[in-house]
Amino acid sequence: MSDAARRVLRRADELAGFTEEPGRITRPLGTPALAGATARVADWMDEAGLETASDAIGNLVGRRGEGDRLLLGSHLDSVANAGRYDGILGVLVALEVAAATRIPLEVVAFADEEGLRYGSTFLGSRAFVGQLTAAEAAMVGVSLGAPLFAGAKAYFEVHIEQGPVLEALDLPLGVVTAIAGQSRYRVTVTGRAGHAGTTPMDLRNDALAAAAELVLAVERIAREEPGLVATVGTLTVPDGAVNVIPGRVELSVDIRHADDAIRARGIEALRREGRPGVDIAWELIHAHDATPCSPALTRRLAEAVGPGAHALPSGAGHDAVTLAAFTDVAMLFVRCAGGVSHHPDEAVTEADVAAAIEAATRFACSI
Amino acid sequence: MSDAARRVLRRADELAGFTEEPGRITRPLGTPALAGATARVADWMDEAGLETASDAIGNLVGRRGEGDRLLLGSHLDSVANAGRYDGILGVLVALEVAAATRIPLEVVAFADEEGLRYGSTFLGSRAFVGQLTAAEAAMVGVSLGAPLFAGAKAYFEVHIEQGPVLEALDLPLGVVTAIAGQSRYRVTVTGRAGHAGTTPMDLRNDALAAAAELVLAVERIAREEPGLVATVGTLTVPDGAVNVIPGRVELSVDIRHADDAIRARGIEALRREGRPGVDIAWELIHAHDATPCSPALTRRLAEAVGPGAHALPSGAGHDAVTLAAFTDVAMLFVRCAGGVSHHPDEAVTEADVAAAIEAATRFACSI
Repeated sequence: MSDAARRVLRRADELAGFTEEPGRITRPLGTPALAGATARVADWMDEAGLETASDAIGNLVGRRGEGDRLLLGSHLDSVANAGRYDGILGVLVALEVAAATRIPLEVVAFADEEGLRYGSTFLGSRAFVGQLTAAEAAMVGVSLGAPLFAGAKAYFEVHIEQGPVLEALDLPLGVVTAIAGQSRYRVTVTGRAGHAGTTPMDLRNDALAAAAELVLAVERIAREEPGLVATVGTLTVPDGAVNVIPGRVELSVDIRHADDAIRARGIEALRREGRPGVDIAWELIHAHDATPCSPALTRRLAEAVGPGAHALPSGAGHDAVTLAAFTDVAMLFVRCAGGVSHHPDEAVTEADVAAAIEAATRFACSI
Repeated sequence: MSDAARRVLRRADELAGFTEEPGRITRPLGTPALAGATARVADWMDEAGLETASDAIGNLVGRRGEGDRLLLGSHLDSVANAGRYDGILGVLVALEVAAATRIPLEVVAFADEEGLRYGSTFLGSRAFVGQLTAAEAAMVGVSLGAPLFAGAKAYFEVHIEQGPVLEALDLPLGVVTAIAGQSRYRVTVTGRAGHAGTTPMDLRNDALAAAAELVLAVERIAREEPGLVATVGTLTVPDGAVNVIPGRVELSVDIRHADDAIRARGIEALRREGRPGVDIAWELIHAHDATPCSPALTRRLAEAVGPGAHALPSGAGHDAVTLAAFTDVAMLFVRCAGGVSHHPDEAVTEADVAAAIEAATRFACSI
């Protein structure tokens, strides 16, 4: 298997050369860089004896065998200044499963998961299953043909964890239980501006002090609930000045959990926060429910990983979210150095990749 | 006295017409707008029988009598989009004291207190007393001549409060005990950036959560100490994004008290704040000690104001800070609507101005 792992790492290095920005990896939908990477993966599919097909948006599949096949893969597009494994690893490990087995399967390489080009969500996998709207097709400049997807026994995706949990546990692999549901809010905190030198503390309506309480409430409420993550990632004080009491603050809240009811309870608790004399207005920007992985497949994947397989939710979205509406899904996480992703420092070890190929192959043969 | 108050308000309206920006009041040092306002005040000094003189930077004095005179006044320059009473009121009330009495006195109108043009501090009053450096004179483009100031019995300044204390107490006037000392810091909070979806709460080093604790500590420590005011007026999350745990936060801290030892103690307490895994670096940007008003003059001013005169510190800086190095100083605050200053809504009532003229006149005659 170590030969296979080395090949995966070599191929990831080669695909990193397909970029719109010399010196760093940036490979959005609809670019020569993505077309180049996709063509190279098509070569490898050919080598593996898979029959390739593609659609207007740029998704690529390589098929083998008849009937209800196992679908495996991930995406080939990237964020700006990306690492070389996010998405890529899932496609390359799928190719190794194809090489190591003779089972009927379909390897898929999606053309857009990151949404870098249009600020969109999962255009590739949604085009693949025929879920693209006419407006989206027009935006991307493609015509809606018959979707490549015609059913599958299951969808299985290998992906770098993009988080620090497996590293902290000293484990190479993790079995994903669900892809977390998520809510994002834009919060506006309105108090009253005033002179920092002449307004006594008891006559203030400080929007930033109220916002600080909210930031800490976000942290506290998430800490109190296992698995809940909540983050204030942006905060600005419009018209702020050193000698002016802040009159208004804008901040973001991002909250995620694999159980939608727990996420809803966290939001409820947060929205009760506040202090007299300051107004807090919540505007929902984005929300999606959790996507559970198939419990049966997840159990089988845990067996393939071996004793002590660690189960964890995915806090980030993945193509499996789209496929889950059509078939059972399972996901395998691979430890990545420092939990770093969406960054040139993204790294995996050969040993971990070898373990992922072994587990993926055992799993694919078991279903 | 009501005639005098009406004249002050009429003159303030007239001076508001001298501006560099039509439709709003913006009157920095070295502009035709300031020269026009100063010339108009010189006319009124002439009318009051004062002998006028000016210096290269644009300060204006009107003198009467010989020997150690009482010096009264304030500044004629403004911030951008200013109100019409900040500074102006002190000059116009001084003219009314001159008109109502025959005591030897000197009315001064400083050319720069706000520092709008050069981001400077008290260029007008410091040129007046001969404290301008050669570099500052070169920056402003004036040559250093003999200063206009040649000693004074005392310096007395009437000014709008620029804060909400007198209004909250339902009082027209306040006697200033001291001009607060002040320290300003730039604080950098450094944690570790991470993915908002994939990093569990217990593996985070969230710079914004640590910054939020500091914001609340600033508020708490100031609340615990009577007279202490402390403010975080600016806060930014560089490279912040909705789905990224903040790795770095920059914020400002402004802390003021009329007692320098209390301010120092507050700073010490603040600098002990912090949480594990996050670094907090403090950089001092600016500091000046408190300027006490003369206790003897302040007692006499309180008598001139009458029974129940309210004593309060000034949280904002004033020209009296410069003069205090050369002579005893006293200051009288006039209530302003909503505590608003540095804004077109700056407002005083005719009755309050009448009370200020009466108290100022009684005070001037008593020393």
